[in-house]
Amino acid sequence: MPASGSKRNGHLIPLLKEIRRNPLLWLLAFVPVVLAAAKLKPEEHALLFVLSVLAIVPLAALLSHATESVAAKTGDAAGGLLNATLGNLTELVIALAALRAGEYMLVKASIAGAIVTNALFMLGASFLLGGLKHHIQEYNRVSARVQAGLLFLATVALMIPSAVGTADSAASSAFTQKLSVGLAVLLIVAYGLGMLFSLKTHRELFASAEHAEEGEAPWPMGLALATLAGVTVLVALVSEIFVESVQKAADAFGMTPAFVGFIVVALVGGAAEMAAAFSGARKNRLDLSVGIALGSASQIALFVAPVLVLLSYVIGPTPMNLQLWPGAVVMVLISTLTAFLVTNSGRSAWFVGVLVLMVYLIFAMTLYLLPPRVQ
Amino acid sequence: MPASGSKRNGHLIPLLKEIRRNPLLWLLAFVPVVLAAAKLKPEEHALLFVLSVLAIVPLAALLSHATESVAAKTGDAAGGLLNATLGNLTELVIALAALRAGEYMLVKASIAGAIVTNALFMLGASFLLGGLKHHIQEYNRVSARVQAGLLFLATVALMIPSAVGTADSAASSAFTQKLSVGLAVLLIVAYGLGMLFSLKTHRELFASAEHAEEGEAPWPMGLALATLAGVTVLVALVSEIFVESVQKAADAFGMTPAFVGFIVVALVGGAAEMAAAFSGARKNRLDLSVGIALGSASQIALFVAPVLVLLSYVIGPTPMNLQLWPGAVVMVLISTLTAFLVTNSGRSAWFVGVLVLMVYLIFAMTLYLLPPRVQ
Amino acid sequence: MPASGSKRNGHLIPLLKEIRRNPLLWLLAFVPVVLAAAKLKPEEHALLFVLSVLAIVPLAALLSHATESVAAKTGDAAGGLLNATLGNLTELVIALAALRAGEYMLVKASIAGAIVTNALFMLGASFLLGGLKHHIQEYNRVSARVQAGLLFLATVALMIPSAVGTADSAASSAFTQKLSVGLAVLLIVAYGLGMLFSLKTHRELFASAEHAEEGEAPWPMGLALATLAGVTVLVALVSEIFVESVQKAADAFGMTPAFVGFIVVALVGGAAEMAAAFSGARKNRLDLSVGIALGSASQIALFVAPVLVLLSYVIGPTPMNLQLWPGAVVMVLISTLTAFLVTNSGRSAWFVGVLVLMVYLIFAMTLYLLPPRVQ
Repeated sequence: MPASGSKRNGHLIPLLKEIRRNPLLWLLAFVPVVLAAAKLKPEEHALLFVLSVLAIVPLAALLSHATESVAAKTGDAAGGLLNATLGNLTELVIALAALRAGEYMLVKASIAGAIVTNALFMLGASFLLGGLKHHIQEYNRVSARVQAGLLFLATVALMIPSAVGTADSAASSAFTQKLSVGLAVLLIVAYGLGMLFSLKTHRELFASAEHAEEGEAPWPMGLALATLAGVTVLVALVSEIFVESVQKAADAFGMTPAFVGFIVVALVGGAAEMAAAFSGARKNRLDLSVGIALGSASQIALFVAPVLVLLSYVIGPTPMNLQLWPGAVVMVLISTLTAFLVTNSGRSAWFVGVLVLMVYLIFAMTLYLLPPRVQ
Repeated sequence: MPASGSKRNGHLIPLLKEIRRNPLLWLLAFVPVVLAAAKLKPEEHALLFVLSVLAIVPLAALLSHATESVAAKTGDAAGGLLNATLGNLTELVIALAALRAGEYMLVKASIAGAIVTNALFMLGASFLLGGLKHHIQEYNRVSARVQAGLLFLATVALMIPSAVGTADSAASSAFTQKLSVGLAVLLIVAYGLGMLFSLKTHRELFASAEHAEEGEAPWPMGLALATLAGVTVLVALVSEIFVESVQKAADAFGMTPAFVGFIVVALVGGAAEMAAAFSGARKNRLDLSVGIALGSASQIALFVAPVLVLLSYVIGPTPMNLQLWPGAVVMVLISTLTAFLVTNSGRSAWFVGVLVLMVYLIFAMTLYLLPPRVQ
Repeated sequence: MPASGSKRNGHLIPLLKEIRRNPLLWLLAFVPVVLAAAKLKPEEHALLFVLSVLAIVPLAALLSHATESVAAKTGDAAGGLLNATLGNLTELVIALAALRAGEYMLVKASIAGAIVTNALFMLGASFLLGGLKHHIQEYNRVSARVQAGLLFLATVALMIPSAVGTADSAASSAFTQKLSVGLAVLLIVAYGLGMLFSLKTHRELFASAEHAEEGEAPWPMGLALATLAGVTVLVALVSEIFVESVQKAADAFGMTPAFVGFIVVALVGGAAEMAAAFSGARKNRLDLSVGIALGSASQIALFVAPVLVLLSYVIGPTPMNLQLWPGAVVMVLISTLTAFLVTNSGRSAWFVGVLVLMVYLIFAMTLYLLPPRVQ
């Protein structure tokens, strides 16, 4: 893409400014470091794991900023959703790397973990951080209810194969596989209809209160698109190192694989969106925070996960199904229920954040202590 | 009953008018056809199955119209509930036929299926059909909450025998049987108190907004009662053929027995109420639709199912208990939760209908693909 | 404590007045009777059981009155919570007696039973008794939601060890033990933060409507504190007899141990709070009733249960974990969900009470019929 490349050169100044302004982006220095280290010391898994985490975080932040810039040009209504959609590009790319490597356990753990982390940690921490500054915060509960409804639908789809599963493993496996493909198509259709509803037929319900602009000038479209493309490639390269090293690094650090997939990968993949959600909460723009948290969760459940199931037929060694291990189903179910019950009122105070974070802490503690055989 | 018979002759004109007006009723021609076919070709199960479905649908519609006419005479408050009560006469008669044949699996599947189909398909399709015509629809949420509360109670009763069940099968079986009788009595009492509450002590809470009349003159009481009696007998005769043929026809069509019991029987049995609910939704009378959908579901759970358990001591080969297979419990539970969460706000738009229907589709797809051994 | 003793003598008159006024307190005569009987007839378990129940009920009422008097002096905001906190002193003392005896099954059953009994029986009976006198009752739903949220958190903590549990019993047991300690600490922290929220940072949200005073003059502080201390000692002595006799008495009366732990112990331990909650409901002070019911339930789940787990390291024969049997988890979960759904609207009528009580009846019936091997 030489045309877009030359365009990029002409507009590079805002990108450099952003990097100087945002200390997080200094971590970009780790991108070449990890790529080099992977060539030179392919056996140093713990080191590669740490380096790849340090490299993914700023890349995710750049992706996020580029997405926001594109969203800003395409109008208010599309902004939030586009934001959530491409904000999960990092998760998708990481999962694709794991899928190609046939690490289905890791793919599934990271899907379930991303849902749980977004619906509990991101939402809860937003409520807490916002509530520590503002006595009571209000937000658009219609929007929260639609996202929670989509999340509920996805949870039903994730739990039903386990709930009606069977001991007869041969018949069961074929059944689960066919069912997973059907469910994947159904979830993608539901996701598309959800966008039609919130962006087109009933967009007036999703308007949030007037807010001052965030004050940062968006990037020019050319730079934004070029950054999106270039950074995605870098994330893909680093993700491959991350996926290769994560299991062995987990052993080295004494962490269970379940904890790594559920908690570490999800926190790394979602770092950039979390920064945006928390900053929104502090600025009393809780609509934005709740939208990012629940939007990300539902997008992973209704778009990323089904796409991975369908792609596994093309790029994976064998087809992947949607069946999670029972403990993960319970956690996803509780997360959805928590998000639903908590966002029911459209009001928040710091203690609501504490309650939601405590549920997350219970899960994290359980996964951390879980004996490796069990997951 | 010769007196009632002669009365019927004098008032037959509205019945004939109704048949001419409503193309659905032309299917009544299949009633004699299926009765004859059952005598002539008792081994043609697939044919008998199709014919009996085609015959039950118009009979259910007639039953429904007769019920509405009786309800219209007995006043507004009693109307809705009476409607739901006798609207489920079809389900009750079909289930009685299966009970007499000792097909307890089919009875239970059709009970669970009727709850799920009413709470998800009928409710969701009403929301969708209404929402495609009207931007936002409102309905009386107090009434919806009471029905959902009753449904929740019944769900607890249906899941508790499985939840505390045991491996020790002899003790467990006696326990489940005694418990089922106790639960059946309790549910019937709760249902009766619910009627007392909504029809008597707090009837003002259940009033819906003023609506124009439906424009159809109700039948005279004599004709309505005679139709109720006569058609019930016909439904009973056709149901027997239906129950005998359904399992073998399912094999012939490649459908699992679970799918037939849950989905096909429930859709056939509820066809008439669905027509009423959908027509109400299109006319922006969502109170009526929600009332029929949740009222039917709770009535099957709190009245039809317990009555069948108690009747099994009289007419069944052995007593029937209330214990469902775990997958069915999960589906009933999710349906109740969905109905509760969705009707919480008293407002609806088309996408709410899509969400609810999608949950139903997930169940239907799962049951369709389920290997036969598993249910 | 001779100082407090002499003070008590000077103020004994209100205590004697209270005893004359309140017929329940005449049961205090059974306190010396049961203590004597335990010495003279240590083998008469059924008799000792009945006598100890008769002795605990008035002691719990005295404890409750003393607590209210202390609460009245410490201000409105602290009153409700202090009430719930010390109102559960009876449950705590009974459970400590069972803990010392190593009867962990009984401890756990009484914890789960107290949660279920408070969240269902006390709440439901308050709604019913209040609703029979008042057409529609309103209460502060913010306060109910916070208590229900805490209860939800505790339920997640109680179900997660079972949900992710494993067949590998050795690893599993160590895992469950470590997890239980972590969860216990977490729940106590959440409980403390909940008090900070409702008593300090957001106390204005918890104000109930103005009410006339209850008309009873509170006791002087000295008498109240002395009564608290003295009666606690008596409850401890009687509890020991109760715990020793309860299992064998259950056999004698044909009750399952699960029924005794869940239902009988919980009703005995909570008798005094129930009296207060029901009296509040009749006086149309439903805020008070809901506060006592949900406050007690959440306090047992987030304070009494974790404290017992931690204390088991000090006073129990072996450490106790938080893992309940699956049936108990389901019951606690359903109770929490019921409380959450029912208190969502902040309004009540008699039928809401019926629904909640019916759920409790289903549980009681199930436990009563449960074959002993199963629990």
